Amino acid sequence: MRVLVLGGDGYLGWPQALYLSKKGYEVAVFDNQARRHFDLKHSFDSLVPIRLLQHRVERWQQLTGQSIAVYHGDTTHYESLAKAVADFQPEAMVHFAEQRSAPYSMIDREHAFHTQYNNVLGTLNIMYAIKEIVPDCHLVKLGTMGEYGTPNIDIEEGFIEIEHNGRTDVLPYPKQPGSFYHLSKVHDSHNIMFACRVWGVRATDLNQGIVYGASTYETELDPDLATRFDYDQIYGTALNRFCTQAAVGYPLTVYGNGGQTRGYINIKDTVRCIELAIESQPNAGEYRVFNQITEWFSVSDLAEKVGRVARRLGLDVQVRCIPNPRVESESHYYNVVHTKLLDLGLEPHLLDDDEIESMVRLSMKHRDRIDTRLIKPTVDWRNSENHVDYAESEPAQLAQV
Amino acid sequence: MRVLVLGGDGYLGWPQALYLSKKGYEVAVFDNQARRHFDLKHSFDSLVPIRLLQHRVERWQQLTGQSIAVYHGDTTHYESLAKAVADFQPEAMVHFAEQRSAPYSMIDREHAFHTQYNNVLGTLNIMYAIKEIVPDCHLVKLGTMGEYGTPNIDIEEGFIEIEHNGRTDVLPYPKQPGSFYHLSKVHDSHNIMFACRVWGVRATDLNQGIVYGASTYETELDPDLATRFDYDQIYGTALNRFCTQAAVGYPLTVYGNGGQTRGYINIKDTVRCIELAIESQPNAGEYRVFNQITEWFSVSDLAEKVGRVARRLGLDVQVRCIPNPRVESESHYYNVVHTKLLDLGLEPHLLDDDEIESMVRLSMKHRDRIDTRLIKPTVDWRNSENHVDYAESEPAQLAQV
Repeated sequence: MRVLVLGGDGYLGWPQALYLSKKGYEVAVFDNQARRHFDLKHSFDSLVPIRLLQHRVERWQQLTGQSIAVYHGDTTHYESLAKAVADFQPEAMVHFAEQRSAPYSMIDREHAFHTQYNNVLGTLNIMYAIKEIVPDCHLVKLGTMGEYGTPNIDIEEGFIEIEHNGRTDVLPYPKQPGSFYHLSKVHDSHNIMFACRVWGVRATDLNQGIVYGASTYETELDPDLATRFDYDQIYGTALNRFCTQAAVGYPLTVYGNGGQTRGYINIKDTVRCIELAIESQPNAGEYRVFNQITEWFSVSDLAEKVGRVARRLGLDVQVRCIPNPRVESESHYYNVVHTKLLDLGLEPHLLDDDEIESMVRLSMKHRDRIDTRLIKPTVDWRNSENHVDYAESEPAQLAQV
Repeated sequence: MRVLVLGGDGYLGWPQALYLSKKGYEVAVFDNQARRHFDLKHSFDSLVPIRLLQHRVERWQQLTGQSIAVYHGDTTHYESLAKAVADFQPEAMVHFAEQRSAPYSMIDREHAFHTQYNNVLGTLNIMYAIKEIVPDCHLVKLGTMGEYGTPNIDIEEGFIEIEHNGRTDVLPYPKQPGSFYHLSKVHDSHNIMFACRVWGVRATDLNQGIVYGASTYETELDPDLATRFDYDQIYGTALNRFCTQAAVGYPLTVYGNGGQTRGYINIKDTVRCIELAIESQPNAGEYRVFNQITEWFSVSDLAEKVGRVARRLGLDVQVRCIPNPRVESESHYYNVVHTKLLDLGLEPHLLDDDEIESMVRLSMKHRDRIDTRLIKPTVDWRNSENHVDYAESEPAQLAQV
């Protein structure tokens, strides 16, 4: 089966391409190099060195004999997208090609605008490309658990049965996203649901939790196959960032009181979940939603876990609560239904001390690549009008964290 | 109070500007002439002749002594928007500046893209303009009843209390919009709700029904003050279109079996509703939703009413059901809560035979301006890939309708 991985050079897209290639799928990647471009402009870098996309696919071919086709293009540039789709004729498309950072989307108006432009209109183009070029192609779309927010009732998988004034219907689950990035995914969900209904497109919307982990079995085959690992305030997700902070003696920065609870998933499970979605193709016109998480933790839980493991490795770890730059509830109900992927056969890699230890050790190994100026949060949800030039930021003083 | 009417040259924006000016508000309009530009490109025209924006405001000043400031600009062009907002310093903004046609949004990819670009990103710019320039300004946003779709339960005003597994929360009402246009309004609603929560913006989201009527008390003062009246397949809403069809002996074209039921409102009530929203300013951070309708009808109901009145005027009226170009349920439950505007003091102008008769007579008066080629629906929800050049359309044969 031919699978086109949109955003196939990113943190998740690249391991996904390798995983599917290893499993015998015919894989192509489509990427606009936006994530690497941000790093170039703002002097950010992955903790783990990564090779150019072309070098990566060449190394993969040397090691496995499998080829991965590369298309350079942009989902917001319909001609480049349509050309790739027409050429490769995918039977499934995995869509990672979105601006994926909540803080990025809250930097200022330009970044909010760019996030919604890229994500919402890029995905709209993808729906048209499917409809017009490969109408049977299955769209596997990465959504986010953040679409739901933190309602005071159980979070269901995409839809909820509502009884109201003696009548009943099954309706899309209400959404309360917490940033312009999360909003863009809510907009996508509505657009995709509509395209399925009106055009008979088949789609699976994966509301993924926060991903942690530095590698998959495939990326571990060779350093040239490594995927990126972000620890900075813009792209670094909580657990990855905490492991890096522990390695350099930077306090684990808990936003607010740390009671914010979120769903998490190991990167090794992400790549398997997407395979499960591809294998279990929906019917024409069907719009499915799976909650792609395996467990949930509060931010404080994670800081405590990382602190314990890192201290065992001889590191001096502090945990520090800092003012929360986000607008979010720090004490809330959280219970998520996530049975659909388990029913399809997912066997979760749950978070244990070995996993954390490997991430802390990786951070220690690359300690000299860590720029601590990139860690302190400067993007404030309440007051995001100033364009921040990260390259000109002052070095963060630990005492000011 | 200073009120900036965004899209203040349109079907509703212009009467709104006059209404508020008459009531003593200090009014400015902001418009990009997009609606008139479409007419120029595609040889469409209003049934009722309309004057240039500049001539309209000059005539209004001659007649009433009231001045209305004009800003030429585009919400997607932030600099022009910010300049107008900074200059006029509005205390309320009424936002009509959206692409407002469902069929337009379904013409092809380019029109879907343009609709969501203009509406979603334009409104995002407006939110930033408020936050950064006039943080206390009240946004009065035109949404649509079409955001809700046709659920099998009562439609509440924006939010619904849900009890689920023994727990309860009040959550945003689930949305099931039926076109890329309606989707754009759903996206707006989510973005605005978020801006209120995070930045403390105050907003009223008016989920308006389908508007009918050719004039308000203000536009009736002089022919130079007339607002546009659309009868074509793209912009002509059901009742307006039926009245025009009756006048020229074109069968009243009911899409499908006509069971589609929707909320309606008289244009005279629209302008009052918005005044009521402005008068009852929400608190900082408050996001209110009002359902702006006064009654509901099925499409068949409307055709029957128009037919009866028109025949009384001596017209030979046929009603013809044609294949539904839209994807929508033609038999469904529909019950809408719409008490908030009534509670604020709205006294509805309900649809009666006199209102219909005046619209039919208006259509008869301007019969020679009606281009019947523009009536037949060519935009198909299921198959919208072809860019249609209306100017090159063949004259519609009545027999083919």
